[in-house]
Amino acid sequence: MKNFDINEDPHRRFNPLINEWVLVSPHRAKRPWQGQNETISTESLPKHDPECYLCPGNVRANGVSNPAYKNSFVFDNDFAALKQDEIIFEEDIKHTFFKAKPEQGISRVVCFSPRHDLTLPEMEVSDIENIVKTWQKEYTDLGNIKYINHVQIFENKGSVMGCSNPHPHGQIWAQSSLPTQVEKTHNSLKSYFDKNQRTLLEDYVQAELKVGSRIVIENEHFVALVPFWAIWPYETMIVSKRAISKITDFTAEEVSAYAKILKQLTIKYDNLFNTSFPYSSGIHQAPTDGFDHPEWHFHMHFYPPLLRSATVKKFMVGYEMMGESQRDITPEKSAEILRQQADVHYKNAVK
Amino acid sequence: MKNFDINEDPHRRFNPLINEWVLVSPHRAKRPWQGQNETISTESLPKHDPECYLCPGNVRANGVSNPAYKNSFVFDNDFAALKQDEIIFEEDIKHTFFKAKPEQGISRVVCFSPRHDLTLPEMEVSDIENIVKTWQKEYTDLGNIKYINHVQIFENKGSVMGCSNPHPHGQIWAQSSLPTQVEKTHNSLKSYFDKNQRTLLEDYVQAELKVGSRIVIENEHFVALVPFWAIWPYETMIVSKRAISKITDFTAEEVSAYAKILKQLTIKYDNLFNTSFPYSSGIHQAPTDGFDHPEWHFHMHFYPPLLRSATVKKFMVGYEMMGESQRDITPEKSAEILRQQADVHYKNAVK
Ligand SMILES: O=P(O)(O)O[C@H]1O[C@H](CO)[C@@H](O)[C@H](O)[C@H]1O
Ligand SMILES: O=P(O)(O)O[C@H]1O[C@H](CO)[C@@H](O)[C@H](O)[C@H]1O
Repeated sequence: MKNFDINEDPHRRFNPLINEWVLVSPHRAKRPWQGQNETISTESLPKHDPECYLCPGNVRANGVSNPAYKNSFVFDNDFAALKQDEIIFEEDIKHTFFKAKPEQGISRVVCFSPRHDLTLPEMEVSDIENIVKTWQKEYTDLGNIKYINHVQIFENKGSVMGCSNPHPHGQIWAQSSLPTQVEKTHNSLKSYFDKNQRTLLEDYVQAELKVGSRIVIENEHFVALVPFWAIWPYETMIVSKRAISKITDFTAEEVSAYAKILKQLTIKYDNLFNTSFPYSSGIHQAPTDGFDHPEWHFHMHFYPPLLRSATVKKFMVGYEMMGESQRDITPEKSAEILRQQADVHYKNAVK
Repeated sequence: MKNFDINEDPHRRFNPLINEWVLVSPHRAKRPWQGQNETISTESLPKHDPECYLCPGNVRANGVSNPAYKNSFVFDNDFAALKQDEIIFEEDIKHTFFKAKPEQGISRVVCFSPRHDLTLPEMEVSDIENIVKTWQKEYTDLGNIKYINHVQIFENKGSVMGCSNPHPHGQIWAQSSLPTQVEKTHNSLKSYFDKNQRTLLEDYVQAELKVGSRIVIENEHFVALVPFWAIWPYETMIVSKRAISKITDFTAEEVSAYAKILKQLTIKYDNLFNTSFPYSSGIHQAPTDGFDHPEWHFHMHFYPPLLRSATVKKFMVGYEMMGESQRDITPEKSAEILRQQADVHYKNAVK
C-alpha cells in the first residue's frame, strides 16, 4: 500500500465541461513503439500554387474562380455536409429506436491568407487579427439567419487530421441544433452558472492561475493551458480571463491579445517537434438562438494527435473507443514541455 | 420545401445506447479526395516470425519466454496502462476542478493463435470457439478479483488502428470503475429495462429484423447489423438475439454461433476492399461488481476506419471532435454493401 502520487500512479480525472472521465497512465510514456509512423511532408511550398483550389485567382471544383483576395476569404463549401434546404418533416414519436430529424445548415471555408505557404505561427499578428475579425463577421452573419442556432468555427491542420490541402484554412459549420459536444458543455456551464452566478471557466482559470503548473502562456486577457482533464498528449485550451460569451463581445484589445496568444501557442507547437504541428482546433461559444447566454464562456480547444515525435501519434482506438479516453503523459508534464519551447519559430531561429 | 428523404437529406440520428446524436450527410459520399492515403502492407507474413514477441517460444521485452502454446495464450501486458497496486487515497471533495482518483486494474494480452499469419476471418470456426472460451475464462477470473468491476475485452487490428504487431491478438483491460462509454450504456440499458422489463437490445434487434435493411448477417442466435445510429462508415454490432447479460452465460450452441458470425463478418470486411480490414472491436457486457444485471445485453462493436478504399479512411476530426460525429454514407447503404460481399475469403476465392 502506498500513498497516491498523481505524477506516477494510474488514475482517472474528471472533465466538468462534458461530465466525462479520462484514464491517465503516467508510467506508460516509456513503452517502446514499433507501430505505425506518420509521414511528414518536408517539401517547401510555393507562395502561390496554380493547382491549389484555395489560392487567389484559381478555379474551384464547381467552376467558380476565387477572387484576388488580400486577407482572408470565405466561401460556401462545394461539398457541404449541411444543406440550406428547408425540409418538411413530421416527427414519428413511435420510433424508440429509429429517431431521425432533418438538419438544416451551412458549411463554409475560411482561407486564412492568400499565401499558400503560411500557417498561423508564421503569420503576422495583424494578419491573425484579420482572421479573428472574419470569424466575428461570420458568427454574426450566420448567427443572424433565423434557423441557425449554432456556429462551429474549426480548423483541421495537417494531413494526419484529414486536411487535404496545406493552404491555410479553417471551416465553419452552422446549423439548427446544438451538436452533441456543445450540448454537453452547455449543460455543464448552465448548471454551474445557475448555482454560482459566475461562469465555470471564470473560476477554473483563476484556480489554474493559482496553481500555475498547467499554464502554457498567459497575457493580459487570455490564458493558454493544458486542461487538468486533457485527453490528447499536448491538448490545450485558450480561455478568456473575463467571462465573454462570444467572439463578437471582444474589445479591440482582446482581439489583439487573442491573435497574439494564437501565434505564440502555435509557435510553441511547431517548435515541439520542429515540424508543422498538426491539430484540430475549434471555438466553443454561445449558441446563436437569440437568447442571452451569461453562462457561456469563450474557449478554444486544440486537439493535436502527436505523442512522441513528428511521426508517432497517440491512437485513440480500442480501449479509448469502448471504454474511455486514455493518456500516457500527465497534463502537468505536457504543459512544462510546451512552456519550455522557444517563442521564436524554429524556421526563423538563429542557428 | 420538400419532404424529408432519409436517403438523401442531411439529418441527425439518435443513439439510444449512449444518448448522443450523429450527423448524417448522405449526399457527401461523392466528394473528391485529395488528402492522406494510408499505406497497406501487402507483404505476406511467415507462419512463425522469430522477431515477433507474441509468437510461441519467443522472448518478450521483459526477458520472459512465451510457452509453445497451441491455441490462444494470455499474459499480463508488459507495458500496462493499469496497475494492480493498492493506493491509499483520501478524496478531496473541495476540488471542483481538480477531481482525480487512483484506478486499480490489470491489462492483459490475448494471442488468438500460435500462427503469426492468421487473422480471425482466416481461422477455423473451432479456433475462434477457443478464443471465445478464453474470453469467458478471463471474464470469470478477472471478474472474480475483488476490486475488478469491469472487464473490457477488445481488439485493435491493423497499423492504422494503433496496432503495432500483426500477430493476431486482442487485449483485456480490467479495472475498478465503469469506463465512461460503458457507464453511459449502462444508464441507458438500466432505464429501458426498468421501464419495459425487457432489455433495450432485445427489442432493438427485433425491430431491426422486422425492417431488414440494416442486417448484414443473421444466424440462429446472433445478428450482425449496421446500427441505425452508426458513426463509422462500416460500423457494425454483433448482438445476441436472446437477452444474455455476459459471455459466460452463452450455451455451447451460442458459443459456436458467435464464433461463426465473427468469422463471417470479418470475411465480409476483408472482401470489401480486398485487404486485411482494420478495425477496433470490443465487447460490452455486464459489470463484474457481484450484482445481477438483467438490464445488460451482450453486444460487440466493430469500429472500422476505412471509407472509400483500402487506403482512404474517414477522419473524425475538427467538426466531429468539437461538434458531433458525422458520416457520409447511410447505415442502410453500408449494410447493403456488406451484405453483398462474398462469404468466402478473397484469398481463398476461386479465381
Ligand atoms: O497497447 P498497445 O497495443 O501497444 O496500444 C494500442 O492500444 C491501446 C488501447 O486501445 C491504446 O491506448 C494505444 O494508443 C494503442 O497504440
Ligand atoms: O471538409 P474536409 O476538409 O474535406 O474534411 C475534413 O473535415 C471534416 C470536418 O471535420 C471531416 O468530416 C472530414 O472527415 C475531414 O476529412
